[in-house]
Formats: sequence, structure tokens, C-alpha cells
Amino acid sequence: MKELEKKISECGTVLPGNILKVDNFLNHQIDAPFMMSLGKEAARLFKDCGINKIVTIESSGIAFGVAIAVNLNVTPVVFARKSKTSNLSADVYSSATHSYTHGNDYNAIISKDYLSKNDCVLIADDFLAKGSAMKSLINLVEQSGAKLAGCVAVIEKGFQGGGDNLRAKGIHVESLAIIDSMDECTIQYRPE
Amino acid sequence: MKELEKKISECGTVLPGNILKVDNFLNHQIDAPFMMSLGKEAARLFKDCGINKIVTIESSGIAFGVAIAVNLNVTPVVFARKSKTSNLSADVYSSATHSYTHGNDYNAIISKDYLSKNDCVLIADDFLAKGSAMKSLINLVEQSGAKLAGCVAVIEKGFQGGGDNLRAKGIHVESLAIIDSMDECTIQYRPE
Repeated sequence: MKELEKKISECGTVLPGNILKVDNFLNHQIDAPFMMSLGKEAARLFKDCGINKIVTIESSGIAFGVAIAVNLNVTPVVFARKSKTSNLSADVYSSATHSYTHGNDYNAIISKDYLSKNDCVLIADDFLAKGSAMKSLINLVEQSGAKLAGCVAVIEKGFQGGGDNLRAKGIHVESLAIIDSMDECTIQYRPE
Repeated sequence: MKELEKKISECGTVLPGNILKVDNFLNHQIDAPFMMSLGKEAARLFKDCGINKIVTIESSGIAFGVAIAVNLNVTPVVFARKSKTSNLSADVYSSATHSYTHGNDYNAIISKDYLSKNDCVLIADDFLAKGSAMKSLINLVEQSGAKLAGCVAVIEKGFQGGGDNLRAKGIHVESLAIIDSMDECTIQYRPE
């Protein structure tokens, strides 16, 4: 999505440790109309997949999930909670997750009330890098018996391999911008 | 907002400890079109206040914040992060906060890059009970020197007093539904 690549190049900052700081429009301050346009593009990519539910994860996936749901005319967005406790109730699906960004571990959890084998799910998140959070969300969907229509990220760090690993498993993965390499001076995008 | 009161009465569950469980449409599973209609109503209540920024807090305030911004034609939504560390950088506004729901303490933080004296802010959150989170967000806005146009919550637990305390200080506080009392059988709303 050219408009997104332009926004990243104009507003983003590359920090040491392969961190792309885009918190001025995506994940601390949110450019709301732009977020709705990202949701519209994601909805276009998955419009004929029979999706009835968006699954995302707190906090930065929520706005994108809602933006997709509104554009796809899908009512519910379920966001996984990040729980630090190992003492989880039996009424949740849970998946252990490692955050490379924050260097910690958590359980991604979703209430069993809100995901079932009757659902056809699109998983959405702001970033796809090594794929840790995305794999946990896929695991939650599998536990529920729901059908996985695919996964969509706003920004994929292609050079970290998580997206291509999922594609190699036959999962339909789309990212609105894929970064093939980046340093303090230049961000290279994968051709669409 | 009658439509919201109906939704709460139909979908909500009152649990021991004055907890109102509405995670089937508001704060775990989100009814996206309904959330947009909540945003539209909040935007109507504050339409002539010169607001240029919505401030909310992760995670459950984000969807409401975005829904208001879209309906108010306000571009940025800034969501405060909840940080457990006491070791905060100098480039954030920070306010110590107690969560009565979770029984823990955290710092609500917002980058100084995204809030300044040039802003006119509407604070938004899903719940207003004792007002702990709302007071912290007000504190962050005051630190920045921004003008506070007002505060809006989806659901106010009127019987816990937080909203009326803020109103008594002259702050413009609106809630889309105010609960004056609740138990397992009945939820009583304050007349509009």
C-alpha cells in the first residue's frame, strides 16, 4: 500500500535493534482516519473469505481490528488479553508467547465464550516480525476449532522471516507494507 | 443513551464486588458497528468544543477513542500506556494510578511528543467508576498544559461517585449510560 509506505518513510524512525518507531500514527498516537483507510484496504484483501470475526491482541492491534471490522461489515472484534499470571481459569484459550520487543513472556488469552468452531476468523495485528504474537493467535484459533481465513498485519518486517514462515505453511498472510531492509537512512519495501 | 442501556441490560452481567461484565460487546469482544454508534453519540455531545485530540488509556478505551475521533473529524487519538516500572524516561508525562478492578498500581504514561499546550483534549474511557484512571488522564493533560474540553465514558457507575466528584470540580463529564444502582436482578439507570 503506497500510501502506507509513504507514511512510514515520512513519519517512522529506525532505532537500534531493528526497531521501527511509528508511534506517531500507529501505536501510541493513532491517526484515526488513516487507520480507517488501513482497515478498508485489509477488508478489500479478504472480502470474499466468509469472515465473521476479527481476532487481534491488546493494545496496538485493537484500532486496526475495529477499522477492518467496520469496513468488512463484520460485527465482532475479539482482542486477546496479555496475562502475566500462570494461574489461568479453565474458561479461556491460552497460548504462551514471547515478546522480542519487550523481552518478556506472557499468555495470550481469549474467553471461550467468544471463539468457537462456528467462526471464520481473520487475525489482525499492527506488526508482524518474527511472528511470535501471530503464531499465538493462530494457536488460540486452532484451539477453538474455528476456521482461519488468514492473517493481516499493517507492517511486516520481511527480513525477520515470520510472515514468510507462515506463508510456507499455507496460511494466507497479507501485510499492507513489507519492509525488506531498513537502517537509519533508508527503508526498502518489498514490491507489491 | 437508551440503546446502550438496553444493550447493558440484555448483555451485561452483574458480578460480586460491583463488577459489571460487559466483555461480550465492550471490552474483550467489541461490537464494532455499535462502538461506532457510541462514538457518534459522544461526538455529538462535544461537537462544538474545539477538540483536536482524543486521549484515552489502553486497552479498553482505544476502540471508543477511535470511534469518537472518526465521528468528530478529529485526527489523532493518543492512548496512555500502563507501565509497571518506576524507572520512567524524562520524555513522558506520568501519573501514578490505582486500579480498583485489578487491585494493582501502575503509571499512566504519554509521550511528551503527543500532548502539548496547543491541544484541546477530550478524555475518553470505557468505564468511569471511582474515577481513578480518569483523574490520572486529567493529570497528564494538566502536565502538558493542554486545554481539557471534557471527559466522556461509555458506562458510569454513578453509585461509586467518581463522575460526580469530577463534575463538582467544574469538569464537563458526560457518560452514555449512568448506573445508579445494580444487583444481580436489576440495573437502575439515572434519567437522562
